[in-house]
Amino acid sequence: MNPKIIDKVREKNPLVHNLINYVVMNFAANGILAFGGSPVMAMAEKEAEDMAKSAGAVLLNVGTLSSEDISSMILAGRTANKHHIPVVLDPVGVAATPYRSHVITNMLKKVKPTVIKGNAGEIAHLVDIPWEVKGVDSVGDGDLEEVAIKAAQKYQTNIVITGETDVICTGKKVIQNTTGHPYLAQVTGGGCLLGSIIACCLATDDAIEDQLATAVTFYGLAAEYAASQKAVTGPGTFKAHFIDALSFPVQKLKG
Amino acid sequence: MNPKIIDKVREKNPLVHNLINYVVMNFAANGILAFGGSPVMAMAEKEAEDMAKSAGAVLLNVGTLSSEDISSMILAGRTANKHHIPVVLDPVGVAATPYRSHVITNMLKKVKPTVIKGNAGEIAHLVDIPWEVKGVDSVGDGDLEEVAIKAAQKYQTNIVITGETDVICTGKKVIQNTTGHPYLAQVTGGGCLLGSIIACCLATDDAIEDQLATAVTFYGLAAEYAASQKAVTGPGTFKAHFIDALSFPVQKLKG
Amino acid sequence: MNPKIIDKVREKNPLVHNLINYVVMNFAANGILAFGGSPVMAMAEKEAEDMAKSAGAVLLNVGTLSSEDISSMILAGRTANKHHIPVVLDPVGVAATPYRSHVITNMLKKVKPTVIKGNAGEIAHLVDIPWEVKGVDSVGDGDLEEVAIKAAQKYQTNIVITGETDVICTGKKVIQNTTGHPYLAQVTGGGCLLGSIIACCLATDDAIEDQLATAVTFYGLAAEYAASQKAVTGPGTFKAHFIDALSFPVQKLKG
Repeated sequence: MNPKIIDKVREKNPLVHNLINYVVMNFAANGILAFGGSPVMAMAEKEAEDMAKSAGAVLLNVGTLSSEDISSMILAGRTANKHHIPVVLDPVGVAATPYRSHVITNMLKKVKPTVIKGNAGEIAHLVDIPWEVKGVDSVGDGDLEEVAIKAAQKYQTNIVITGETDVICTGKKVIQNTTGHPYLAQVTGGGCLLGSIIACCLATDDAIEDQLATAVTFYGLAAEYAASQKAVTGPGTFKAHFIDALSFPVQKLKG
Repeated sequence: MNPKIIDKVREKNPLVHNLINYVVMNFAANGILAFGGSPVMAMAEKEAEDMAKSAGAVLLNVGTLSSEDISSMILAGRTANKHHIPVVLDPVGVAATPYRSHVITNMLKKVKPTVIKGNAGEIAHLVDIPWEVKGVDSVGDGDLEEVAIKAAQKYQTNIVITGETDVICTGKKVIQNTTGHPYLAQVTGGGCLLGSIIACCLATDDAIEDQLATAVTFYGLAAEYAASQKAVTGPGTFKAHFIDALSFPVQKLKG
Repeated sequence: MNPKIIDKVREKNPLVHNLINYVVMNFAANGILAFGGSPVMAMAEKEAEDMAKSAGAVLLNVGTLSSEDISSMILAGRTANKHHIPVVLDPVGVAATPYRSHVITNMLKKVKPTVIKGNAGEIAHLVDIPWEVKGVDSVGDGDLEEVAIKAAQKYQTNIVITGETDVICTGKKVIQNTTGHPYLAQVTGGGCLLGSIIACCLATDDAIEDQLATAVTFYGLAAEYAASQKAVTGPGTFKAHFIDALSFPVQKLKG
C-alpha cells in the first residue's frame, strides 16, 4: 500500500457519486466523509448525468433494485465512461436471483467499469464458475485467483474479490491482502462501503494496482484497529469505532 | 423462554427476507446480523418471489409505502405462504391514515401471516377497538389481552403486542413479558427490529409459543443489558450497545 | 436562546412529519426522538395529506428526488399551509444540478415555507448570488447576512443559513450563532437533522426568532458537548454521543 494515496484523497476531497442500495446509504456516506471524500448519493434519473460528470468517481452498487435506480445507474455509468471518470461496480447479490443476474449482465453491456468489486460468489457468478451463495452472501469455497483472473479477462477490467483474503487482479498482476476483521461481515454494508472507499482512491493520479491495494489494505487495517479498542464489545460499538478509524492516519492504525 | 432456540438460530443462520421501511432498514439488517440471522432486504417486485422462496422466514413491515413496495410485499407473502415459509406482518401505523389502513386490510386478505406484531394501537385498530395513537405510536390505554385474543381469533393467527408489557397470544395461550427498557422507544425501529428477530426465531423447528416468547424475552433482556452499561449515556450510545447485546449468549445478558 | 422552548417541546412531544432524503432518514428520526419530538417519515403520496394535517410541523428535505417524493412533498406542504402548520424547507443541493434547481424553484411557487434552512451555497443560489459549491456542500465564501436578508425578502419567509457561523434572518432581525463543532460536517445529515430540530421548535407557541435561535444554539451546544466527551475519538463515536446530547437538558450541555 501507498500511504500517499490516502493523503492525496484527504487533500483533494474528491466528490464521489454513489448510486447505492438504501440499506447501506447512510453508512457509506459516513464512511466516505470519515475517509476524506465528499459523498453525494443522488439516485434520481433526471440528475444522474449532471451529478456523475461533476464527480471524481462513480460507484454503482446494485442492492435494492427499483427500475428508476437501474436506469440512473446506467446513465451515471455511461456518463462517467464518456468523461473518463472512474467507475466502480459492486454486483451485490448477482447470484441470488435471476432478476439480479439479468440486470447486472445488462449493465455490463452498457457500462465499462474501472473495477468490479464483489465477494467470491458474486464474481464467480459473473464468469459462470459454480459457487455456493446464501442471499447476498458468499458461503462457498474455491480458487479465488482463478476467479479473479477469469473475470478480469472476460470484462477487460480490474477485479477486487473480498473475503478473509482479498484478491486484487489488474490483468497483469494478482495481489493478495489479509488485513481485515470478522466484524466487517457482521456490519451491513461492510463490503459495500469498501466499494466507496475504492472509488475515493481511484480519484487520485496513481497506478490502479496501488490505488486498489491501498484502499483494500487501509480498510482492513481500520477494521483491525477498531476491533482492538477496549470500548468495542460487539458489532454495534465496532461500527462507530470503525468509522472513527477510517478518518485516522495510516500510522495510527498500524500502531 | 428457551435459550436453545437462540442457539439454533445462530447455528442455522437463517436467511430472513425483510420487506421493511426505509427508515429502519439499516438498523434491522445490523440487528439480524448481530442476533445470528442472515438478512436480505430485497424490495424489487421482480425478485420478490425468488428471494422469498429461498428464505427461512419473511418479514413484511409496512412503513414507507410506495406502490411497488406494497406489490412486492404481497408477492413475497403469498410466495412464503405457498412454500410454508413463516411470515411476520408488522402493520406499522395502520391507524395513522386511511391509506395505511386500506393497504394493510387488503394485504391481510391476500397473505396469511404466521404472526402479526404491532403496538397496542395498531393491533386494536385491526379489530376495531378504539385506541389513541399519535403518528405511528400508540399512546392509549386499555385491555391488552382482550385486543390480542380478538385479533388472534379474527385473523386466525398468532399475535404479539409490544409495549411496557408485551402480550403474546397463540390462540390457545396468552403469555406476558416484562423484559425491556424505555430506551427501545427512543430508538427508531426499536419495535420494527423485534419483528425481524421474531422472523429469525420462526425459522427453527420449535413450537410457536416458545419461539415468540424466546424472541420477545431475549430482545428485552438485550435492551436491559445495554441500558445498564456504563458507556451508555443516552439513546445514541444505547443503540450501539443494544446491537452488541443482541449478539451475546443469553447467560451474559442475565448477568 | 430560550430553554423553555426545549422544555415545551419535550412536554408536548410534537408530531413532526418528515419528507426527507433516504440517506439521513434514520439519523433524523433518532435525532427527533432524542430531542423530544415524535417523528413520522411517511413518503407515500396517498397519505401525505392525512399525515401532514395531523402534524405539529412539516419538514420538506429535498435530498434524493424520485418523482413520487416530490409530489408528496408538495402535497404535504400545501396541506400544512392550508392548516397553518409550520413548514421547514431544506433545499439540499439546490445548486448541484439544474434538475434540483428546477424542482425546488417549482416547489417554492406552490408551498410557502415558514423557514428555509440551508448552507450558504444553497441559500445564495435561491437569490442568484454566485457561490462555490461541491455536490451538496458549500465551499465558497461571501457576505452571509446579505444572502440571508435577500432570501428572506424574496421569499417573504425566515431564513437559517448554517455554517461555522449560523445566520438567522426573520425579516426584521438578523441573529448570529457560533455554537457548533466541525464534527457536524463529518456526519452525513449533520445539516439535515437541524431542519427537523427546527421543525420541533416551531410546534411551540413562541416567537419565531426565539424558536429559531433556540433550535440552532441548542443544536450547536449538543455538538460541542458530544465532541468534548472522552469516549469520542472520531465522527463515528461522535454521532452516537451527539444523539445522546440532544436528549439532555440545556444546563447539562452548558456544563
